[in-house]
Amino acid sequence: MRLIYRGKTKDVYEDGEHLIFHFKDSILGFKGKEDTGGNEVIGARKGKGNTVLQQTAFFFSLLEEHGIKTHFVERIDERNAKFLKAEKIPLEVIYRFKAYGSFLRRYGEHRALQELNIVEFTLKDDALGDPLICDEAVEKLGIASKGEIEEMKRITRKVAQILKEFFESRGLEIIDFKLEFGRKNGELLVIDEISGDTMRVMKDGQVLKQEEILEVIE
Amino acid sequence: MRLIYRGKTKDVYEDGEHLIFHFKDSILGFKGKEDTGGNEVIGARKGKGNTVLQQTAFFFSLLEEHGIKTHFVERIDERNAKFLKAEKIPLEVIYRFKAYGSFLRRYGEHRALQELNIVEFTLKDDALGDPLICDEAVEKLGIASKGEIEEMKRITRKVAQILKEFFESRGLEIIDFKLEFGRKNGELLVIDEISGDTMRVMKDGQVLKQEEILEVIE
Repeated sequence: MRLIYRGKTKDVYEDGEHLIFHFKDSILGFKGKEDTGGNEVIGARKGKGNTVLQQTAFFFSLLEEHGIKTHFVERIDERNAKFLKAEKIPLEVIYRFKAYGSFLRRYGEHRALQELNIVEFTLKDDALGDPLICDEAVEKLGIASKGEIEEMKRITRKVAQILKEFFESRGLEIIDFKLEFGRKNGELLVIDEISGDTMRVMKDGQVLKQEEILEVIE
Repeated sequence: MRLIYRGKTKDVYEDGEHLIFHFKDSILGFKGKEDTGGNEVIGARKGKGNTVLQQTAFFFSLLEEHGIKTHFVERIDERNAKFLKAEKIPLEVIYRFKAYGSFLRRYGEHRALQELNIVEFTLKDDALGDPLICDEAVEKLGIASKGEIEEMKRITRKVAQILKEFFESRGLEIIDFKLEFGRKNGELLVIDEISGDTMRVMKDGQVLKQEEILEVIE
């Protein structure tokens, strides 16, 4: 297997027609503080990679059950899983039920937990700090077509509904989550991972830690 | 007359049903360097306020001739002009013919002068650095309605066409400009100013200084 990408929370290997993701124990944060919405590695915790893998397998399967196409194939072991190769679209597609994290850093802390129900795009570019990007710029910079933009929003809103119902039925509230998309055979697939690292979930007004979300799905 | 706003480049007084703008000699820049797209005062130049006033009177009249509604009433003297009062919408509406300025700081200098033809909104909030904001957030934060968003975009594209033709007929190229909008009697008006401070114009690959744009309209 050939290593094709060394990431903050996972390494990606190529295996013929498939990709193998190796999930690492890195903890993400913002300015040194643990935050699932953060974009820097602030440390490591044993077992964290396995947790993310379990969550990703669980949530991708949940989406597939609801007719959403993803690139997930199967778990291999405690740390590795198999995915379909797809052409990555360099965007993070964020669904915000309520205002939190980078939305508040952008528009002011006084908006904390204000109801939004919006889809936002950020350009995946660590050096530029994953800046917000609006539909027209996405299209004119050739990142995605107008049709793909609408389709990503449609799928993201559907995923939002699925996740909201899932967490509500367990007495929890999802605040925001992000998806990534890839192209395969002219279709859009949800790719990358879906885990406690890519969503914020609250219980009694507190954001759950990544491992606490695992308890919910077990 | 009552002073109601002390700004970086102008002070605004209330005079019955009207506003009186007093144009100052401040020069705007970004990180200490003169830049019409900048948001900080980096110095002053004698006569600059008068130049901006002449430009604003000229461009507002040009727009009115093309059927665009603005809040401009008349020039009073070298430094002051009269405008209609309108309820200000706290957005800057930016039209980008080509990539420049804050667009490059956001998405990378390698995109310099790439063709865009897009409308962008930023939230007018100096403390937050006038952050980019996309349509759905504008609507859900209650800043403007969906109808107003579409109407601001429609007017901005029409203004883009008018300004492009104006500068092209003089051998110049407009790179970007920004508008502000206000509500009056259920209608949207173009408000604030339109001058060398709110647009970038190029000649032979060089961005013109604010005063050089004045020469074009004289």
